This record gives sequence, C-alpha cells and structure tokens, in this order.
Amino acid sequence: MRIIVLGAWGYLGWPTCMHLAARGHDVLGVDNYAKATWENAIGVKPLRPIPRMSARTRHWHIKTDGMPDIPSHFMNINDPNPDQWQVLDEFKPDAIVHYAEQPSAPYSHIGVTEAVDTQKNNILGTLRLLWWLRDHPDVHLVKLGTMGEYGTPNIDIEEGWIDIEHKGRQDRMLYPKSPASWYHASKVADSVNLEYACRCWGLRATDLNQGVVYGIHTPEMELADSLHTSFHYDAVFGTVLNRFIAQAVTGHPLTVYGNGSQTRGYLNINDTLQCVELALTHPAAAGEFRVLNQFTEQFSVMELANRVSALTGAEIKCINDPRVEKMDHYYNATHTGLLDLGLKPHLLTGEVLESMISEVDQLKFGIDTDQFMPRVTWQ
Amino acid sequence: MRIIVLGAWGYLGWPTCMHLAARGHDVLGVDNYAKATWENAIGVKPLRPIPRMSARTRHWHIKTDGMPDIPSHFMNINDPNPDQWQVLDEFKPDAIVHYAEQPSAPYSHIGVTEAVDTQKNNILGTLRLLWWLRDHPDVHLVKLGTMGEYGTPNIDIEEGWIDIEHKGRQDRMLYPKSPASWYHASKVADSVNLEYACRCWGLRATDLNQGVVYGIHTPEMELADSLHTSFHYDAVFGTVLNRFIAQAVTGHPLTVYGNGSQTRGYLNINDTLQCVELALTHPAAAGEFRVLNQFTEQFSVMELANRVSALTGAEIKCINDPRVEKMDHYYNATHTGLLDLGLKPHLLTGEVLESMISEVDQLKFGIDTDQFMPRVTWQ
Repeated sequence: MRIIVLGAWGYLGWPTCMHLAARGHDVLGVDNYAKATWENAIGVKPLRPIPRMSARTRHWHIKTDGMPDIPSHFMNINDPNPDQWQVLDEFKPDAIVHYAEQPSAPYSHIGVTEAVDTQKNNILGTLRLLWWLRDHPDVHLVKLGTMGEYGTPNIDIEEGWIDIEHKGRQDRMLYPKSPASWYHASKVADSVNLEYACRCWGLRATDLNQGVVYGIHTPEMELADSLHTSFHYDAVFGTVLNRFIAQAVTGHPLTVYGNGSQTRGYLNINDTLQCVELALTHPAAAGEFRVLNQFTEQFSVMELANRVSALTGAEIKCINDPRVEKMDHYYNATHTGLLDLGLKPHLLTGEVLESMISEVDQLKFGIDTDQFMPRVTWQ
Repeated sequence: MRIIVLGAWGYLGWPTCMHLAARGHDVLGVDNYAKATWENAIGVKPLRPIPRMSARTRHWHIKTDGMPDIPSHFMNINDPNPDQWQVLDEFKPDAIVHYAEQPSAPYSHIGVTEAVDTQKNNILGTLRLLWWLRDHPDVHLVKLGTMGEYGTPNIDIEEGWIDIEHKGRQDRMLYPKSPASWYHASKVADSVNLEYACRCWGLRATDLNQGVVYGIHTPEMELADSLHTSFHYDAVFGTVLNRFIAQAVTGHPLTVYGNGSQTRGYLNINDTLQCVELALTHPAAAGEFRVLNQFTEQFSVMELANRVSALTGAEIKCINDPRVEKMDHYYNATHTGLLDLGLKPHLLTGEVLESMISEVDQLKFGIDTDQFMPRVTWQ
C-alpha cells in the first residue's frame, strides 16, 4: 500500500513509518515539527534528542537492506495555502494515518493560548484534511482519537456507536462523549467532523480511540540506535507508565494523582503499530465512519504504580490531583473490533515491565527530574 | 440585570438588545461586523441597509424616553489580545448572551476556506469566551445553539441530555448529535466545550438549541423605522420562511429543496426574544450545562410552502436538494423547558403570516431576486 503518515516525527509517528516500511509499504512521512515548538514553550525535552526526518530517512536507508525508503516532507496541514496539498495528490496514497495533533491534555490547560492552539491545530487541521479527502474519497483515513473522548460513563463504553432504545423507538447513534480536557474536547470535535464527512461525502474513515500507550522499543529500532523514538516522561507530554518508570529509575517517588483509582485502557506501543496496520489492511467502507477502541488491558493508576514499585522498590506518593476527574468510577470499555481484525495483544507482563525499566535505566542520566511534578492544574 | 450581547449587530442580536433595554436591563452590545464581511464575500445584502451600532444607539436614545441606553463596543472575541476582555470586566455583567457566530450552513459549505473560517470563528471564539468566564464563574452564559445539532434521529429528540439504559446499567448522558453541515458541526463542538467548562470549572451555561426563526418585526421597532433589524431572504443567510415570503411578493416560485418533507422546529423572532429573556431571568445553576430546545411548532418545508402559496398564489417549485439531508424522516423534538419557564408562544397563524407578507411586500423593490436560488451544494 501507499501510505502517508501525518505527524511522522512523533512518539508513534516514526515507529509507524518504520513498521509499515518494514512490511513493504511505501510510506511518506509528513511533519512540521510543531511538537518541538510545544516542547520548547514549556521547557521539556524527550529522553534522547530526536533527529530530524531527513536524518532518520538517511539512517533508515543505510541500516536497512531491501526495505522501502521512508521519504519525508515538511508540511503544516493548517497552512491555508492550497498548493501544498499537491504533495498528497502526487504521492497517490491508498491511506493516510493522521497523528498530526497536539497530544497533551495538560498542555491544553496551561492557559487560553494553549487551549486555543490545541483546538485550532487539531480541529482545523483535520478539517482541512477532510476537504482534501473530499476530492479523494477512495483514500482511507486512519485517524488517532483517544479513549479519553468517552470520559468515565456509568454504562459500558462501546466502540463509537451505541444502539439506543427510547420511548418505544430505536436508532444507532454516536456514543455520547464526555471529554476531560480541552485536548480531549478537540478529539471529540474531530470525531464529529469525521462522522459528518463520511455521511455527507461518502469518505471512508477509521477513528482509533486509543488508550494510554506505554513503551519505548519497537523491533525496527534494533536496526540502529539512531532509529529510536521520542520518549516523554514529563508531567505534560509523558504518559503515566512511562513517567512512573522514569521516576523509579531515578529514585523518585511515583506520583499518583488523587487516590489512583482512575481506571483507563492501556496498550503497548507495539500494539499501536499492529492496530494501525490492521486498520489499514482492513479499510472502512465508502461512507463508513468506523470506530475502534484501541487498547488491550484496563488498569487503575494505583495498580500500575504498585507493579512498578514491586519491581523497583520505588515509593508511591499520592498527591492532589491537578486534573478534574472522577475517582472510584465505573469503567468497562468494549474493545473487540481490533481483536476481530486479528490483533495479538502484547500484555503488560512482568517481563515486559522489567525490560522497559532496564531500557530506561540505561538512559537515566538524561532524565530531567524537575519535570515529574505537575505544574498545570485544571481549576 | 446587566447583560452583554455578543453579536449585537445581527438579525437576533439587535432586537435582543432593544427587548432587554425596553424591560429595564442594562445592555452592552458588542460586535465586530464580521457578518458584513461574510455578506460581502458572497455578494448578498439584507433587505434594508443596517446602520452601524453607534447610529442605532443614537436613534434608540432619541426615540425612547426613560429607557436605558444601549451602549455598543467593537470587539472581535477571536482576537488573541487579552487586554480587550477588560471591557467585559468593567461592565460587570450578570449574564452574556452569545450570538457572535457565523450562522449559515450553506456558507460553511462554499469551500474549505469558509468551512475553516466558520469553525475557527465559532469554536475558538466561544472557547476564548469560556476562558474569560473561568475567572467570572457567576456570569451566566446564554449561548445560541441550534436544533440542527441533533439532526433527524429515529428516536425522539430530548433537551440536550438523555437517560440511557444499557446492559443493565444507566447514566444521564449528552444527547448524541448528528450535524448536517460544517456550521452545525461547529455548534456541536461549542456544546461539547460548554458542557466541559461547566463540569470542570463550575460555570453556569444555557445552550439554547434554536429552531428556524422567522419574522421581521418586534414591538420595539415601532418606535422608529431606523430600529429595524437585518432581514435575509437569500439562499445562504435567509431562513426558509423568510425566503418563501420574499419569493412570493416578487412573483417568484417558492423553491422547495427535494420533496419538502424535511421537518424542523420553527419559532417567531418575538419568541426568540422571550426565550432569551426567560433564560436570563431563570439562570442555570453553578456547574449546570442546561439545554433548552427553543422552538414552538414543527413544520415540514412543504407545509410552509403550501401556506405561503395559499395566501399569495405563489407557485411551488421542487428543485434538487443542494444539501445532504434525509427526506421522509421521523421527527419529534421535546421542547417543554422554555414552556415550563413561562414561554407564551406566538404561533404561525394566518394573521401572523399575512402581516409578514404585507410587511415584506412594502419593501419588495429592494429584493435582489438573483439571490433566491442555491449556489452552494453540499456534495
């Protein structure tokens, strides 16, 4: 397949490019390095410096033999210049994987500027992409959403749609959303726009409502050290398990927000790659807005802290929750769609956790321990 | 009460300012004349030229005796300059009525530029307002939404929220939305943001999901001819009954899209004023996201065409529907919330229709009949 990855420079974007190229797909990686701007604005860095796309492309070419190259292209999908979309026209993609969004809930709560930038970047960028797809309706859009769109309802979470019986009548409707940050709200708006574009223009889209990703390593990274991906452990861009591990290996307490009863869906970064590939190779039908809940296991934050603590001896410290979110809530989310497509989950075994800890431990002198504590509050 | 009206220059904004001032409220009218820019961009004009706010303020002062003045202020709520919000701080409003949005579904489908401008103006403008309200949580926000957020589901439409029973559990959730244009999708995103702001920051907001408004005359306009409001009959900014009447008085056929079976909620402009006032005088509680469906009667497009035709002899002409929307669909929307607050509907009697026809008839030489036919298609 011919696949364009938008947001190719990111934590998931670059491993996705490599994973797809290693399987023989023709990939074009597109990014505008917006993430670097957001990182600079708040003074955080990933665990290791990340080469620009041209360097990655070059290293990939040198280190792989017989695998397709991964060309890259600089593009801001929010740029109003219509000519820039010609690159997409010329590549003639079968599918587009869209990661090109501001990915942090805390970032979107720093202030009005960051909230507006998040919704502007995410909602309007995606909207411009939908207008390009309007003229290329056969191109399958695989868009990264988040399980956080659903919030923590008191009923089971379904995959995007729900059959509702009401006053003796029934309909299949979009599952009601309850986002818990301006970032999550931007993803809800994206889903609204995607569903409408499929209904109005007959586009084909898959919305991958992803859980919290953990992990630092994918098989393609074994080809060369320079092929590593961006790993964040800070309180703004770091996901919780990645942060706990960075805290543990530097001898810091694991900071649990509130009582740690917040339950969410989680998945290994290698399963993200598998899921995206499964979505690509089993495309949505014309006019179909398909939603798949992309995670493999549910954990509470305290369960994760306990598991990291058991392996490392790290202390667990409950701090005031900087977020506005429910404690001790019901949580049960359906996630059979990707399993039905063939997903073979990499579960969070002791072995997996130990290998993550050992990998981050080797890099622990690069960790900025000032970035662990939350500086952004929701209130 | 002290009330700021955002979008005070518009079809509903100016009558709202007058209605509230006539009842003794202190009103500040805010606008940036964005509507004039949108009108110019597509070459349409309202039935009569509309004076700028300073002229309206002056005429209102001269023609009224003992009623509060209606001061006005130029402000673009999307301007990132934080200092401009001081005007709101200084006015110390009890409530804000927010009409300051791009209001046309066809406009949002002209092209990617107009779609993006619509969502940028509406979603990001409202988001900036929510951040101002974060620091003024006692100020009640009355926001104009639209019944078009719901689409045409196969179950009854409730007022914003719905009790869902699912797999033996239950929750009260946001009613699932199904917008039918980029404009309607912007209003859905607004509702998502409003609900979140109420939940996260304890704001108090009323989302008035308004039906299709008709009418040209409100009692305050009798004080002086110069106090009239903007009346659009064109295929982009004109609502359907207003357009039918303009077509009838100029001897043009009433252009019905498709078979005219599209059913929607409608209300008289005078009931808009009543509803907004009722929402203001019965504010939402702290943390409450209250949704009220603001219409008084349901009609199909063909029923309206038949009624105008019966009174005027106008021909009815079914044309290809430029929109993507369902025909012959189920439609039954709850609208008891405003009745419970005391709304006394002005129904669309023969007398009301005749007086609208007679009023537009007197102005018929100003009608640009080239603006009746749709030039924007959804596909």
